[in-house]
Amino acid sequence: MNVRPIFFILGFLYFGLATSMIVPAIVDVAVGNPDWIAFVASALFTGAIGLLLALSFHRELVEGLSIRQAFLLTTLAWTTLPAFGALPFLGLGISYADAVFEAVSGITTTGSTVLDHLESQPPGLLLWRSILQWLGGVGIIVMAIVLLPYLRVGGMQLFQTESSDRSEKIVPRAGDFVRLLAGVYLLLTVLCALAYRASEMTWFDAINHAMTTLSTGGFSTHDASFGYFTEPSTAWIAVVFMFLGGVPFTLIIQAVRGRPLALWHDPQVITLFRFLVVVSLFGALFLVFTHRFELLDALLMTAFNFTSVVTTTGFSYNDYTLWGAPIVGTIFMLTFVGGCTGSTGGGIKIFRFIVFAGTLRHHLRVMVRPHRVVSEHYNNVRLTPDIVTSVLAFLVAYLGLVGVFTVILTLLHLDLVTALTGAAQAIGNVGPGLGDVIGPSGNFASLSDGAKWVLSAAMLMGRLELFTVLVIFDPEFWSN
Amino acid sequence: MNVRPIFFILGFLYFGLATSMIVPAIVDVAVGNPDWIAFVASALFTGAIGLLLALSFHRELVEGLSIRQAFLLTTLAWTTLPAFGALPFLGLGISYADAVFEAVSGITTTGSTVLDHLESQPPGLLLWRSILQWLGGVGIIVMAIVLLPYLRVGGMQLFQTESSDRSEKIVPRAGDFVRLLAGVYLLLTVLCALAYRASEMTWFDAINHAMTTLSTGGFSTHDASFGYFTEPSTAWIAVVFMFLGGVPFTLIIQAVRGRPLALWHDPQVITLFRFLVVVSLFGALFLVFTHRFELLDALLMTAFNFTSVVTTTGFSYNDYTLWGAPIVGTIFMLTFVGGCTGSTGGGIKIFRFIVFAGTLRHHLRVMVRPHRVVSEHYNNVRLTPDIVTSVLAFLVAYLGLVGVFTVILTLLHLDLVTALTGAAQAIGNVGPGLGDVIGPSGNFASLSDGAKWVLSAAMLMGRLELFTVLVIFDPEFWSN
Repeated sequence: MNVRPIFFILGFLYFGLATSMIVPAIVDVAVGNPDWIAFVASALFTGAIGLLLALSFHRELVEGLSIRQAFLLTTLAWTTLPAFGALPFLGLGISYADAVFEAVSGITTTGSTVLDHLESQPPGLLLWRSILQWLGGVGIIVMAIVLLPYLRVGGMQLFQTESSDRSEKIVPRAGDFVRLLAGVYLLLTVLCALAYRASEMTWFDAINHAMTTLSTGGFSTHDASFGYFTEPSTAWIAVVFMFLGGVPFTLIIQAVRGRPLALWHDPQVITLFRFLVVVSLFGALFLVFTHRFELLDALLMTAFNFTSVVTTTGFSYNDYTLWGAPIVGTIFMLTFVGGCTGSTGGGIKIFRFIVFAGTLRHHLRVMVRPHRVVSEHYNNVRLTPDIVTSVLAFLVAYLGLVGVFTVILTLLHLDLVTALTGAAQAIGNVGPGLGDVIGPSGNFASLSDGAKWVLSAAMLMGRLELFTVLVIFDPEFWSN
Repeated sequence: MNVRPIFFILGFLYFGLATSMIVPAIVDVAVGNPDWIAFVASALFTGAIGLLLALSFHRELVEGLSIRQAFLLTTLAWTTLPAFGALPFLGLGISYADAVFEAVSGITTTGSTVLDHLESQPPGLLLWRSILQWLGGVGIIVMAIVLLPYLRVGGMQLFQTESSDRSEKIVPRAGDFVRLLAGVYLLLTVLCALAYRASEMTWFDAINHAMTTLSTGGFSTHDASFGYFTEPSTAWIAVVFMFLGGVPFTLIIQAVRGRPLALWHDPQVITLFRFLVVVSLFGALFLVFTHRFELLDALLMTAFNFTSVVTTTGFSYNDYTLWGAPIVGTIFMLTFVGGCTGSTGGGIKIFRFIVFAGTLRHHLRVMVRPHRVVSEHYNNVRLTPDIVTSVLAFLVAYLGLVGVFTVILTLLHLDLVTALTGAAQAIGNVGPGLGDVIGPSGNFASLSDGAKWVLSAAMLMGRLELFTVLVIFDPEFWSN
């Protein structure tokens, strides 16, 4: 395999990451915080390596990428970018395990954090966490729309479009689409920031939270996360933009271009919307009857917390673990759901539930009537054995990996609830787990370095839809 | 659908169950315990209904059963037999929910119990619990070898044989095979009882534990289960016969007929054996290094507890939850594994892991090389899309149902660990869960009636390999 085009693109990406480190440096300089040095040093180091790679291999990308090159590039990009993105965190004097965990959690838009006393951290550093999530959000959307359908990862061949369907090679003419996407993503972020500012936030908080809302990331500038803000309108704005962060970006682009109904005709969006409305309503009624909340207060709390978990944003608002076993059990299951594919949301994703439901219905009927010929469809595409196997194998691998990571974490002496919910939230890129340590009012600082490396690996595997990483571990991948 | 042949067979089964109630009645009479009345009354009631049904519909079974009739019969038999099998427990003055839970746990060979102070219970009643598991064990083997491959449940079409492969109708000429099977099953039970007796048990304990060992059931005559017995040889005998209870019965029959190597050439048996050896060894080394156990003691403890959980027997020997998070996490994962298909073991079952591993390997390679043509096999049978979908859909449904039952149990206010491990052990027909309430040193008595009904449903769904029940809930099943 010719790895030189891969090095060229990696160099290009490192250089881009270095450039974005300048922004927090400027902010720290403006407020007179000496932490700007960490950003300038990191930017110079990362930028130098990026420039070196890009210049050394700039003549290599002439024929596009083969499938194997695309797999390798994707995994290398998502694993090495956080290694550089972690450098500015070292200025705080934390360990490299902590720094990498924070950077991986940022770029995968997970939102688990090892930092506390956030209010007293350098503003440039807080902004850097938000930037990592915002860039990671763009990255995952591009990957999910342009690359994964072409690589047919976990049933994503269902979403092959003119930007992704290439017979043999991925040619780099997806550029126009990426620019359009980045523009709309920026526009939505600006709208979200303005809404937060109008509600109650400072400009700094508004910009940071807008970046981590749209990317369904979940980093906050306050230890209490959204619990810091008192206006209900702030939380409702977050609910709306977290939801938008969880719907397919191609449909948002169509909506911006004057076809808003495209959103409501999409099976993923309708299912996600109805599901959130139903669980939020039932959850609110439960809180009204058992905890004597006012209905509207209760609805805000369930809508916020459930939307935050399902879209895999992970903002905290209340410590819902105090509301009893029914809410805890519900939140645990919601950790697996995830957003729509083509969004910044992680998790299993809505379309796979729809495909599984159709497959199961069909399968049960064929068991009873072996000669049945009716076939199932997703959004007018027939579910071929190829797609069904892709989706089902993904589902089993997903749930199986949650089990494997759970065992590994218990071997590192985490208790069962922390290990299980830690593994599930990491693979789903959600953010908080359950239990006293990593629950919505805790954080990941007290875990051992070993557990942090394992969770970092889990976040990356989840973000890369598992198979993109797993193929590389198959010896046959490397044979010619 | 003509349901009359179904009523005939149900009547026949009820009459058989009534007959087996005479044995504990005789035991209670012999020791002078007045509880014999409960058995005689239950036998008369159950036998009368059985006789009535069998005689009313005895002319109906002339053409064998259609697929739909077979599904309906299977589900009705396994759900209504425990309703009658629960009657003798009412003599203790416990609620009907408790009685049904105990009977379902018995007949599904799960082994969870709501009874305590077992040593002071009527001996007839203790024997009845063992008989329920022993009969349930025969029932599941017959179902798994004769019926499920023909119904193609969860990939079991891989095990179609001359006893199961019928093009259109199940004709009742599987009788010879069932008699042979029952004979070998009885022979192994006698051998196991003799070995227990020779080690240290009383005849009563030996017979009861032999019946619940071979059926991988797990009911004991002592609250401390195998912790009551002090000789290491007793526990090692249990390990051997639990393992035999977890291997395909067709292979045991071949071994008895002089072809013992058939066991070692079977992919399920080899995988189960190697897996148990490896996890037991690693577990024992962990106990040696962290808890300073002697190696042989440690090996007995891990071999016993791991074999007990993996074969879904569920005997307790030590409270392994005191050995720290690594053992707890390992046991939690082992709850899902299960025995081989065609045995009395429950759980996911070994062949499905083998099929999934092959499918995943193939799928990852096809993602990288779309034109790859090599196909995967299980035991020389090619894995067709039909089989792959069956197995994968089963795996997703299994893990999904564990999630659904977990949420239902948390809605009934069980804490997350109790709900999750309770659901997982019930669907897998294992026996003990984790946590203070239903862990290896607890029991299920303190749960609410609602939770007991839910767990009873979960045990039945697991025992019926999920799909056998699910098809009946599909409205299309009932249309003509």
